[in-house]
Amino acid sequence: MSTARRGRRPGAPDTRAAILAAARERFANVGYGPTSVRTIAAEAGVDPALVHHYFGSKRDLFVAALALPVDPREVLAPVVAAGADGAGERLLTALLGVWDDEERRLPLLAFARSVLEVSGQHLLQDGFLTVVIGPVLVDLGLDDVDRRLPFVASQLGGLILMRYVLELEPLASMPAADVVTVVGPTIQRYLTGPLP
Amino acid sequence: MSTARRGRRPGAPDTRAAILAAARERFANVGYGPTSVRTIAAEAGVDPALVHHYFGSKRDLFVAALALPVDPREVLAPVVAAGADGAGERLLTALLGVWDDEERRLPLLAFARSVLEVSGQHLLQDGFLTVVIGPVLVDLGLDDVDRRLPFVASQLGGLILMRYVLELEPLASMPAADVVTVVGPTIQRYLTGPLP
Repeated sequence: MSTARRGRRPGAPDTRAAILAAARERFANVGYGPTSVRTIAAEAGVDPALVHHYFGSKRDLFVAALALPVDPREVLAPVVAAGADGAGERLLTALLGVWDDEERRLPLLAFARSVLEVSGQHLLQDGFLTVVIGPVLVDLGLDDVDRRLPFVASQLGGLILMRYVLELEPLASMPAADVVTVVGPTIQRYLTGPLP
Repeated sequence: MSTARRGRRPGAPDTRAAILAAARERFANVGYGPTSVRTIAAEAGVDPALVHHYFGSKRDLFVAALALPVDPREVLAPVVAAGADGAGERLLTALLGVWDDEERRLPLLAFARSVLEVSGQHLLQDGFLTVVIGPVLVDLGLDDVDRRLPFVASQLGGLILMRYVLELEPLASMPAADVVTVVGPTIQRYLTGPLP
């Protein structure tokens, strides 16, 4: 690790910000998989140990780089805990609960715009989906996770787009419980239903 | 109509283009409903009769302004003709058929980007959905069209986003028939299933 110590600046007040900026740039342009903590540290001019010290694991760093107003893994933990039965409704309820909170809306919109743009392709495919949503399906013990994931993403992404980004009425003003009644069974089918 | 004749230039080669540009600008910024052919004609500096001569009805002008590589009403006519039973699968099959055609892909992507952007809010809500997709639901004899439309849009929009715009694998490379098997029942349920 000593080679990465060139230019190290552990005491600089902007060290955290520099690491986050380097992480965002790498994750967005290269994706989660091929990006190493070592590369991010080198780009930020710090020791990799400092990255771990500030942010924990590579996954933790990725979630921090997304700058979300909530840790999605905390929100999704209860979804997994209760098992595959009804997971679609619970996943959707958790998602709407976070999005319907006015204080969290603005940073979430920024996040949605960044991953729904073509330039955010990496952040979604080899990033948010594999790092945050994929593990939920795996932890639920589902089969064929790779094929289920894009279908789940298509409905959740489309719903966020129409309800929160484009504010399509009457969907935008509909009580969350009604949305879950209509869309919940869709998510459940994509999670546990038959695949061709 | 005589007041609109000021600046009329019926023989100019760019008359059609000027009308289309004015139509696009009005539909995008104000929406379909409040925009009149008369306003578009005035902005293009032509007689409203010329707009009708070139483009037919306001609906036709709207579809022309979208600059789609196909007339969506022609594509959707067979969906309506066969009735509500199985309409979800047929609607999806028709949509994927158009999108999977490589030659049409590029102009469709431009269209998708324009309506999925916040600036394209009017083009989607008070435009494409009410002018093109809404009538399909009405012609199918469905109830509660206003509430069903955003759910249909959320799944179709999300699917187009993930399969064609962001090219999320393995969804992007999946045979259309497999996509219809998985997503068709969702559209059908949004069209004819119970609503809360």
